[in-house]
Order: sequence, then structure tokens, then C-alpha cells
Amino acid sequence: MKKQLAVGVDIGGTNSVFGFVDREGKILARGRISTALHDSAEELVKVLCKEIRKLQQELGEESELVGVGIGAPNGNIRSGCIEFAPNLKWKGIVPVANYFETDLGCPATLTNDAKAAALGEMLFGGAKGLNDFLFITLGTGLGSGIVVNGELVYGHDGLAGEMGHAILIQNGRLCGCGRNGCVETYCSASGIRRTYLEKSCLAPDAKIDSKFIYEKALSGDRDAMDSFTLTGEWLGQALANSVTYTSPSDIFLFGGLAQAGELIFTPTRKSFEENLLNIYRNKIKIRPSHLAENEAPILGAASLAWKKVKHTNQYE
Amino acid sequence: MKKQLAVGVDIGGTNSVFGFVDREGKILARGRISTALHDSAEELVKVLCKEIRKLQQELGEESELVGVGIGAPNGNIRSGCIEFAPNLKWKGIVPVANYFETDLGCPATLTNDAKAAALGEMLFGGAKGLNDFLFITLGTGLGSGIVVNGELVYGHDGLAGEMGHAILIQNGRLCGCGRNGCVETYCSASGIRRTYLEKSCLAPDAKIDSKFIYEKALSGDRDAMDSFTLTGEWLGQALANSVTYTSPSDIFLFGGLAQAGELIFTPTRKSFEENLLNIYRNKIKIRPSHLAENEAPILGAASLAWKKVKHTNQYE
Repeated sequence: MKKQLAVGVDIGGTNSVFGFVDREGKILARGRISTALHDSAEELVKVLCKEIRKLQQELGEESELVGVGIGAPNGNIRSGCIEFAPNLKWKGIVPVANYFETDLGCPATLTNDAKAAALGEMLFGGAKGLNDFLFITLGTGLGSGIVVNGELVYGHDGLAGEMGHAILIQNGRLCGCGRNGCVETYCSASGIRRTYLEKSCLAPDAKIDSKFIYEKALSGDRDAMDSFTLTGEWLGQALANSVTYTSPSDIFLFGGLAQAGELIFTPTRKSFEENLLNIYRNKIKIRPSHLAENEAPILGAASLAWKKVKHTNQYE
Repeated sequence: MKKQLAVGVDIGGTNSVFGFVDREGKILARGRISTALHDSAEELVKVLCKEIRKLQQELGEESELVGVGIGAPNGNIRSGCIEFAPNLKWKGIVPVANYFETDLGCPATLTNDAKAAALGEMLFGGAKGLNDFLFITLGTGLGSGIVVNGELVYGHDGLAGEMGHAILIQNGRLCGCGRNGCVETYCSASGIRRTYLEKSCLAPDAKIDSKFIYEKALSGDRDAMDSFTLTGEWLGQALANSVTYTSPSDIFLFGGLAQAGELIFTPTRKSFEENLLNIYRNKIKIRPSHLAENEAPILGAASLAWKKVKHTNQYE
């Protein structure tokens, strides 16, 4: 009997990564190509599929593709399209899932990267067996995957889970979306950068990133330490608000900023409890994601395919 | 064959109402008793069940109870208990669903009043066939029922859907929950009362209610009209935030304040669109509930029982 494998593909602004993932969430082989080198999505998918087939041959043992999952910015599960992604070369609405299905001859499922990672946490990470949780990625922005009754929340249009764009502070910081005070202008890698620049009176174009601030904080720099504390306070407030909607049992933090460990978790948990409505206090856990930073994009994407298989089997 | 009927019971701080509801959402008979006259929940339920049996006899034709649904403040579907309801006489955690089951000998389901009404809207009102919507009650506070993938969101502890206690304005108005700036301190009958008192410089204990403000606004009073506009602006902001979590197709407004019609809907819709993240614009409808104000508590509660029956039949 052939070994069943899913393919996970993560399309990023600079690079795209892909890999073969077995039913237990082990990545058996992986590869990477440049996204930016390809002018159209159709061309990118063609090259990706060629590489995927090559990798499948290299794997040696005979395998059967159960499906391909794709995580991508502005990926919409309902349409299978990448819709108006600001950081990708091609514009408009592109039927990427369809391109993969045609080329690889197996089912393809596409959603955005944060939702895919949330699913990865549920199938292969710390959220196994949980029915209601939040998954938050603290990258350049703040992405979120919301799980309710054991299912990802996609919303009527596939675009649920944008809590990075809930307003945290009225008339607050200008956001990339054109509005003011969005959660992600405070709680993200770029948010903590803005906070640190304000604190340390550096020029807005200073060449520093959140890793620099992390190292500064470790070395005892007051502005850097304060920036983590403030970011945690804001994040705790934002999460306390989010709990009033779906009352999750656990909140997982993922991404560069979550790697800062207690520097970010301690002030976040403290502020979270202080800002919670009483009925939610002392029972919701804020935890680091169990997914490795370099595996999550492939695992998350592959879990889209595995989820589909398991759903289908359920009704066989 | 006996006619199948569900019983809907709504336990309020002053009165409790109950009625028999058929599969199509028609109330065939109804009654009311005082809640406040009874010192314990057990006694209240005993009297309610007696009245329900009496009413069943009066109905004439032979009927079979498929179940009883109960809407109550702080009702928790997971435990079947009313938990620490501030406006009821008895304290602590009371197993009300259990009392009904024992007395009436049919399945009992309990949840809070806003969630019950949301279910009523889905089974018998304007949300038939909708999979993702919000139901908002604008009463003394702001209650909410969130529907995702065709199911009410209860959360890990049964306490989801408290968006009235998301923070709208940092360090804003003091809320009954002890925190500041909760949505319901601005967007509710008591919220518009506070707004009107501030605008008109009346004393905080002035004997006016939202109905008074409504009539003032109709007669052209500037402060009253401004109060509706401001309330709508805040509500539009709050709803724009809420959309980022579950991306509903429709938002239903219910309750006294929603009865004010265009006085509240026009500024709410305007502010909502202005404050939405671009991907959600021009596609989410804010609509009045289709449930009659005096029928919703019974219909909502009865729909808990009908929902259960339909779920069970599905897997027969």
C-alpha cells in the first residue's frame, strides 16, 4: 500500500516553501523557491508543482498525494483564490487552488497563512483535542485563526479572523489599512518597533527590527524592556476583548515576537487577567505555540489537506 | 398522532413568561407569573411547571412535549445552571434545567436570553438559512448571540457572546461590570440615557428612559436627536470591530433601542461602513430583527428545544 502524504505549500512575498507531510505531522521532505522571481501566479504554481513532483521522486518510496494545502496572504478558502494580496507581484483575484488541482491532479485547499497555522496547531501542535481556541501570529502584522466547536471560523465570505484590525485605541496609530488604532499597530513586530522608536526618540526610518529590540532588552536596555512591557499590556487588552466573542479555553501566540518568551508573555498574561470581564478570569491560558517557527508554514498548509481527508473519511 | 410542541420559558428579573410553540414557530398559548414572588429557583420552577401543565390541558387537543427551552440571565448551556445572576433573588449556581427535566419529564435546555433569541431568529425569524450572523439585543445592556457555521457560539465554558463588554473606549464610561469603556455603556438603552443626560445637562438620577428620548427626538429635540446619532456612531464602531472576528453576512438588532427605527439604524449603518476594514465594506447588512418584541423571549427559548429535536433527528 502506498504511503499517504499531503503537500503543504506556503506562498510568501519573497519565498515559497513546500513539503511532504505524513498523517502524524512529520515533514518528510521540503524545498523552497523564490516567489518574487515569477511574474504570474500561474507560472509560480507551474514551477512549484514541478519541484513537488521532483521531490516526490526523490522521496524514494511510493507515495500517494491525498491533497495539497496552500497558505497564502489573502487566501480565501471559499473561492480558492488569492484576492488582492498587497505583497505579491500579481494583482486582482487569482484562482491558485484551481491551478494546483489541475497540475497535481489532487484536491487543493487554500486559506490565509494564519488560519492554516491555526489548523496546524490543532492537528499537530498544542491544540490537539481543543474545541475553542485562538491562534495569534505576531509577525509584521497580527494574524489570527479562531477555532469554535472544533472548526476554523471562516465567516460568510472566508475572511473572518482579522482581529489585528479591530480598533484597540480610538484615533490611535495609523495602520497600513488606512484606519487608526488597529490592534496590529501596537501588537506585532512592527508595532513594538514603533513603540521602541517613540521611547528612544530614534528616527522613524532607523534600521532596527524586533530582534534588535529583544537583544537590547536582554542586555538591560530600559527603553527596550519598557517596549516589551507596553506591547504586552496592549496585547493583554486586545486578547481580553477578543475573549468576549468566542470564549476560548486557550490562546496560542506564534511568530517572532512570541519567541521573546517571558519578556512578552509575562506582561501579556498580567494585563490580560486585569482587563478580563470577571466571568472569564483565571481560566483561559495564554501559551506559546508548539509549532516550530520554520515548520509551521508547511505543517499548517498541509493540515488543510489532512483536515479535508479526515472530514471525508468521517462520512464514508 | 399527537401534535408535537415545545415549551419556551423566559425567566426575567421581574416576571417569567412561558408558552407552547409548534414546529413552525407559532405560539399556541402563553402565560406569565411573577419571578420576584418566589424565594428559590426550585419553588419558581415548581410553579412554572404547574402552570405549564395547566396550559397544556387548556390547549384541548392532545399534545406531546418535545422539550423545554429556558432563556435566563447568566444561563449556561453547558451546565444547565443559572450562574450568579445579579438580577435574580437566589444566589450562586442553580441547576434550573435539571429542575425542569425532573418535573416535566422531557429534555430541558437552558442558555442566556440573548443567545436564545438569536436561535429564535435563526429558526423562526429573519436569519433562516443564514450560517454566519450576529444577533444584538439593545436592552438595559447589550447582549449578543453569535452564529458561526450555522451553530451558536457558546465557547469553552458556555459564556461566549459578551461583546457588550468588549472595550470600545479606553478609560471610558464606568460599566456595571466594574471596568471602563464597555460597549454597552454607550450602545444600549441605559447608554443612550447617559448620553442624553450628558448632552442636556440633566441630573444623573433624572427620571427619563430611552422611550422618553425617542419621543423627544421625534418631536425635534436637538439633544435627543444628537443622542441617537452618537449612539449609532458608537454602535457602528463596535459592530465594525466585531466583524473582524467572525465576518457575519448579517447583523440583526433587537430590543427597545432597535424599535427606534431609522433614528438608530441610519447613523449605525453610516458609521459601520466608515469604520469597516476595506475587505468587509458594502456587503454586511444591518437589519431589524423579525421577531416581535413580545414573542421573542418565548420563541427564542422554545427554539432551544426545537433545535435539539432537529439535531437528534438528523442522526437517526
